[in-house]
Amino acid sequence: MPPPIEFWFDYSSNYSYLSVMRIDDAAARSGVTVQWKPFLLGPIFRSFGMAGPSALVRPPMAEYIWKDIARQAAKYLLPLARPSTFPRSAVLPLRVALLGAEQPWISEFSKRIMLLNFARDMAIDDSAVVSQVLHDLGLPAAEIIEQATTAANKLALREQTEAARLRGIFGAPTFFVGEEMFWGNDRLDDALEFAAFTALRHEAS
Amino acid sequence: MPPPIEFWFDYSSNYSYLSVMRIDDAAARSGVTVQWKPFLLGPIFRSFGMAGPSALVRPPMAEYIWKDIARQAAKYLLPLARPSTFPRSAVLPLRVALLGAEQPWISEFSKRIMLLNFARDMAIDDSAVVSQVLHDLGLPAAEIIEQATTAANKLALREQTEAARLRGIFGAPTFFVGEEMFWGNDRLDDALEFAAFTALRHEAS
Repeated sequence: MPPPIEFWFDYSSNYSYLSVMRIDDAAARSGVTVQWKPFLLGPIFRSFGMAGPSALVRPPMAEYIWKDIARQAAKYLLPLARPSTFPRSAVLPLRVALLGAEQPWISEFSKRIMLLNFARDMAIDDSAVVSQVLHDLGLPAAEIIEQATTAANKLALREQTEAARLRGIFGAPTFFVGEEMFWGNDRLDDALEFAAFTALRHEAS
Repeated sequence: MPPPIEFWFDYSSNYSYLSVMRIDDAAARSGVTVQWKPFLLGPIFRSFGMAGPSALVRPPMAEYIWKDIARQAAKYLLPLARPSTFPRSAVLPLRVALLGAEQPWISEFSKRIMLLNFARDMAIDDSAVVSQVLHDLGLPAAEIIEQATTAANKLALREQTEAARLRGIFGAPTFFVGEEMFWGNDRLDDALEFAAFTALRHEAS
């Protein structure tokens, strides 16, 4: 069996959108299990003295990035509408994601939140929006949001963010296969290939 | 015939190394001509208030980038030795490149300069080094270096750098096919595919 892939993401991250939408299918094709690792990019950027995503420092780069994402989205047959706010706050859905990281609904919940942000231009850090998504998945929305917003779960998301920083994560999406780090949606396939080869090496030895 | 690909590069840029080494073969396979466009990344970065490559702002990113380049170099079967100085000054070889941009030796000259920087850890902004490379290519080294360092050619490189900035270039390597911009070695194949499709669309219409 190949080792699992850790998927570190933030729902506010535009390249994380592409990975959220395709990681389940891509990992399944490689026989790899996905471990969902929500974290907050903001504190990571601030730890380097950055006010936000690095592309924002270079206005032509910020423009180009959306063109690039549109091309990538077209390649993956994904809808895309440039959000009117970027980066958009995503704390509540990330708290829910941390609570549900090992639940069967984490992938579908993540896809729906990401589609709202990057295809429907909706405020995703809103309890009515998050509640509706959970409800549509047949889940007890009020109960999940209550658990997601306890002091313990808020602290757990801060701790997961600190764990990301200590692990050397500097952006999102980031993937780990064992101790091997891969950064960016462009490297998801390389990470899965690495996991598959790891399994082959173990079989051969 | 597909349109040409403009290849904007700086010999100090690590991801430009990967593109310099493979663009000729990759473009030839697509039937695309390469237009070599040397420019200075430093003034571009400074125009955005940046002191240098953006990865340097985040130390774990700077480390990761070399790991990523090592993986990419292995994929392309290219040698790589992390330079002891990065980014390394490359003004003289870029002046020579501008002078020779339309000469048959531009690709081979570029590959040799890049190998010295990224595989042999040598100072490439040195007239003895540049002279030796030109000599090894059977070219009149002294004459070329003299022409490359005239006030007119120095100004021409500054003007090409300003043209890059006005074109919306914010990093290297950058490729243009017509007005369509592609940034980064990861997008070279997409740019060539775009050029090939442009030709097909013209044939079909």
